[in-house]
Amino acid sequence: MQQFFHEVKIKTNGQGLYDFTDKTLSWVNKQKIKNGLLNINILHTSASLIIQENADPDVLDDLKNFFNKIAPMNNNLYKHTTEGKDDMPAHIKSSMTNNHLVLSLKNKKLLLGTWQGLYLFEHRLKEHTRILSHHLIGN
Amino acid sequence: MQQFFHEVKIKTNGQGLYDFTDKTLSWVNKQKIKNGLLNINILHTSASLIIQENADPDVLDDLKNFFNKIAPMNNNLYKHTTEGKDDMPAHIKSSMTNNHLVLSLKNKKLLLGTWQGLYLFEHRLKEHTRILSHHLIGN
Amino acid sequence: MQQFFHEVKIKTNGQGLYDFTDKTLSWVNKQKIKNGLLNINILHTSASLIIQENADPDVLDDLKNFFNKIAPMNNNLYKHTTEGKDDMPAHIKSSMTNNHLVLSLKNKKLLLGTWQGLYLFEHRLKEHTRILSHHLIGN
Repeated sequence: MQQFFHEVKIKTNGQGLYDFTDKTLSWVNKQKIKNGLLNINILHTSASLIIQENADPDVLDDLKNFFNKIAPMNNNLYKHTTEGKDDMPAHIKSSMTNNHLVLSLKNKKLLLGTWQGLYLFEHRLKEHTRILSHHLIGN
Repeated sequence: MQQFFHEVKIKTNGQGLYDFTDKTLSWVNKQKIKNGLLNINILHTSASLIIQENADPDVLDDLKNFFNKIAPMNNNLYKHTTEGKDDMPAHIKSSMTNNHLVLSLKNKKLLLGTWQGLYLFEHRLKEHTRILSHHLIGN
Repeated sequence: MQQFFHEVKIKTNGQGLYDFTDKTLSWVNKQKIKNGLLNINILHTSASLIIQENADPDVLDDLKNFFNKIAPMNNNLYKHTTEGKDDMPAHIKSSMTNNHLVLSLKNKKLLLGTWQGLYLFEHRLKEHTRILSHHLIGN
């Protein structure tokens, strides 16, 4: 059994979904693992991870808008307001989506559906650099 | 360390929760793994996975109704409408639940609580065949 | 490859987030694994797991209040009412957050962000003892 670790860094400039599928595949393809598990963790609590449709960009906009409606950026709704009107909604949206993704690697191929892409979901308004820990375990 | 892969196919005929616990257990029990991890991925973005109570069927109905209320099938709310009024809500519901489940196998027993069942959560109105990738890693 | 199993038990007395990071770290640090995966499963369907900010306790209150607003404890909204007004909302909140968490262990260190803590999210009003299965696999 072998294990490999990697960090993918993504610069974000505002709320929305950032496709990092290619960055993950590019790293995974270079590792000497044929079958195994890939664990991806986001090391932040105001951005999150989701697997979503990679065909129509409108889907990504609708997702962003839906979560903004369900957890509005309105300081009157929250106690935690010192980090800006977008911070508490960011924590809520993170808790409703994912901090980690686990994917299976079979015969050097990551098992994803035809229309599935890996997305970082940024919930903050300003620029951030987000770190996604990648961990591959297998043989 | 050994690894085994399998696909569970589930035919759905409309929105709701489909229990696949027995299909998973039946496959896992036949593999030569005593302790390990089971990773289940759904290879679609308009249906999802959840672990929920398997006792009262009303719970499953209430879950379906709750998610229909929170992400209504109303084209006026979304930009992505070309695939039907149920498609964008399906993506939203998928992003709020799970694309994957990870379970632990200990002494040939999948660690689930007494009242926990594995469910496919179908968010589309028409018939679909959904593929659930199963990957067991352990020894 | 080696595997170790453990149960963390947490007594809860009402709705809210209970930090169990130290209990997990304390067990993980004693195991003879340098690199590997940690899988944590909650064996219940009316409480769940989340990774959240561990700095400002107001964040935890806001999360609790948000989920109570989105899934109100009002029997008129649900069919499943026999286990109390807090039970069906508890199932809903569980399905919107996590039944499991997967974390990576690298050089004996659990990969968590600076501000990330591990929380049990109790959704029931009365006292409960919750069991969190811990499973470490690696070498």
